[in-house]
Amino acid sequence: MKQPEGFTRLGFSEEEWEAMNVFKEITEDFGLLVRRDFAGNLIARWNPSEEASSLPAVALGSHLDTVKGGGGYDGVAGILCALGAVKELKEEGFQPDYPIEVICFASEESSRFPVSTIGSKAMSGILDTNALENLQDETGTSIKEAVEARGLSWDTIKYAERSADEIRSFVELHIEQGMRVENAGADFGVATAVACPIRLKVQIEGKMGHTGTTPMGMRQDALVAAAPLISFVSEKAEQLSKEKEYPIVATVSKLNLKPNAMNVIPGVVELGIDIRSVDDSLKERFKSMVEEKSLSIEKESNVKIKTDIIVYNASINLDPNLAIKLEQLGESEGLKCLVMESGAGHDVMNMSRKWPAGLVFIKCRNGVSHHPQEYATLEDLRLGVDILVNYLRDEARNG
Amino acid sequence: MKQPEGFTRLGFSEEEWEAMNVFKEITEDFGLLVRRDFAGNLIARWNPSEEASSLPAVALGSHLDTVKGGGGYDGVAGILCALGAVKELKEEGFQPDYPIEVICFASEESSRFPVSTIGSKAMSGILDTNALENLQDETGTSIKEAVEARGLSWDTIKYAERSADEIRSFVELHIEQGMRVENAGADFGVATAVACPIRLKVQIEGKMGHTGTTPMGMRQDALVAAAPLISFVSEKAEQLSKEKEYPIVATVSKLNLKPNAMNVIPGVVELGIDIRSVDDSLKERFKSMVEEKSLSIEKESNVKIKTDIIVYNASINLDPNLAIKLEQLGESEGLKCLVMESGAGHDVMNMSRKWPAGLVFIKCRNGVSHHPQEYATLEDLRLGVDILVNYLRDEARNG
Repeated sequence: MKQPEGFTRLGFSEEEWEAMNVFKEITEDFGLLVRRDFAGNLIARWNPSEEASSLPAVALGSHLDTVKGGGGYDGVAGILCALGAVKELKEEGFQPDYPIEVICFASEESSRFPVSTIGSKAMSGILDTNALENLQDETGTSIKEAVEARGLSWDTIKYAERSADEIRSFVELHIEQGMRVENAGADFGVATAVACPIRLKVQIEGKMGHTGTTPMGMRQDALVAAAPLISFVSEKAEQLSKEKEYPIVATVSKLNLKPNAMNVIPGVVELGIDIRSVDDSLKERFKSMVEEKSLSIEKESNVKIKTDIIVYNASINLDPNLAIKLEQLGESEGLKCLVMESGAGHDVMNMSRKWPAGLVFIKCRNGVSHHPQEYATLEDLRLGVDILVNYLRDEARNG
Repeated sequence: MKQPEGFTRLGFSEEEWEAMNVFKEITEDFGLLVRRDFAGNLIARWNPSEEASSLPAVALGSHLDTVKGGGGYDGVAGILCALGAVKELKEEGFQPDYPIEVICFASEESSRFPVSTIGSKAMSGILDTNALENLQDETGTSIKEAVEARGLSWDTIKYAERSADEIRSFVELHIEQGMRVENAGADFGVATAVACPIRLKVQIEGKMGHTGTTPMGMRQDALVAAAPLISFVSEKAEQLSKEKEYPIVATVSKLNLKPNAMNVIPGVVELGIDIRSVDDSLKERFKSMVEEKSLSIEKESNVKIKTDIIVYNASINLDPNLAIKLEQLGESEGLKCLVMESGAGHDVMNMSRKWPAGLVFIKCRNGVSHHPQEYATLEDLRLGVDILVNYLRDEARNG
């Protein structure tokens, strides 16, 4: 591992912009025309001819921002394979009938501001700038200030929206961030849907007290009340998942305790719960189960529990025909494909609202992602390039 | 509540020193001789006469530092009641045979550096400066630097130690930080022992993973593994406490989760467990039970659990004769006394290693402490003054 601390290129940071500048240099070297849109996305375009330049583009893309201390492949793999595919086609003298684009989306991760895929939301016209304008990062910088520090304007981000006839179809390649492809004995995956999350914030309010002077029977310990809820979320999701390999996943992924001091009984615990399934009704049922369990703990434990929905996203179906095509394009190379759903959100989910969109997964070692040890082999990246080359050959030509 | 955010006067901070300067002004107004020792403690001394000035002092004391956002009474009540007692005796023209001291100890709380009662440890000669010199506060300031910022020197702190013949006896008054006095229908408490803690740091190492892409059956979620341990600590201590009102208390009071991000399965959880009893063998047994439970979780949950002892303090007996005297001095005023143990540590526990020492508790509202809502009534403070006046009248006179 050459970067033991991983990579940190947060959304709208100088580091993200530096990485995008490298993308710009490379694509200009390829002879592509590169522009930055109002949301900070870079669009590198291969215009086949003057007359064809107004046709809809066949687009590839992903992102270059990372979580804090993230790996070298999340987002980057998709950009690299897209660049590899364009390079290969350029070198072999391929003549597309439609323009080809490689799009580098801005700020995909929700690590800096609690909102993901900002660039692709803007491009597909679903970024609600009014609802988001008060978001701050942990240093107190607002999302408006962050965007303006990059020379953009929050008020004009909405002009990044592109019309339906500008893009013919869009494909994102991404590392799987899981092990289902490998466990299925497959070489790559194609997603038919993205399981978007319901996210709950659960606040448990007990009562602080001195750990040494408050008898056990007189406590209202918020962490003791949280423990059975943590167990419940895990056990219930596992139980529901026994029927199928992946009908639902649920995680208590955040926990903040106040005052978190050695000699004070926890007074307040705040939990973040992430629930995902492509089956939206199952997700909704699971949310209700968490609320019911919270109510029963509240009665037993003499604490107050408040459950807020902070994210409620319906799952997104990707284009079924494009999924079949991608599967076949890989299989024509002798590769085995796992048709699956995506448990994670990606830029493609926004693009799919406006354009036919597809998502290709390549394997990553041990399924590890958002971590310095994130890794994909050169062979798997090469395999990704092959699929994208086939896709461009197929989609960017008439007939 | 006039201070909704509470008070923050951390150990060796400018704020603590400002409060101590007020103490200095008040005691000098009373005609006491005030000196600051090598550890930063202020010693305000009432010398009855030239010839009696070398006799051992009858000492009262507590502290003026606070936790972050603490209340107005922890430590302060002891200082105020001691000042009130001295003022009353001065005004009535009391002539002591022995010197009387009010000691304001430096840095009692462990909120800034993870070590408590620094001033009283130094005075009683048990401060291990070598073992502590690398401690840092959360801003990265070392304890040496903090001490030096107050014009003291880490190398000379040890000279704050006083010899056995300098003090005749020491009494601290403190708010109870619990409700046992009130629940017993008593007016005040006298402690016979201080239940010092065993503190454990439990590190649970699982494996990070994407919350959306890692199937339930393939997870090594460190927080899910922590949940039954949290429940165990509470349930087991409660069960052991059913026999007596206070044989043992145990609390998971700290919990830090990594990475604590909405879309990442918790990879590492670190718990802080505080175990207290005046029965040291029961405390030791409880520690073993936590270790056994951790082992069984480790086997079931596919995580690694490491248990470290970070504090292992034997409980401290206070002077039994002084306890009886304090009880009688209160009862002579018509007050009902609860003879009890102290669940919290105080400066008196260090002083008791070298001098006969006693601890008086006054009630505080709802047992709340280390919180802006901490409160003691004027009546209870007055009652505290009365007991200390009686103690000084009795101890500072011959025969």
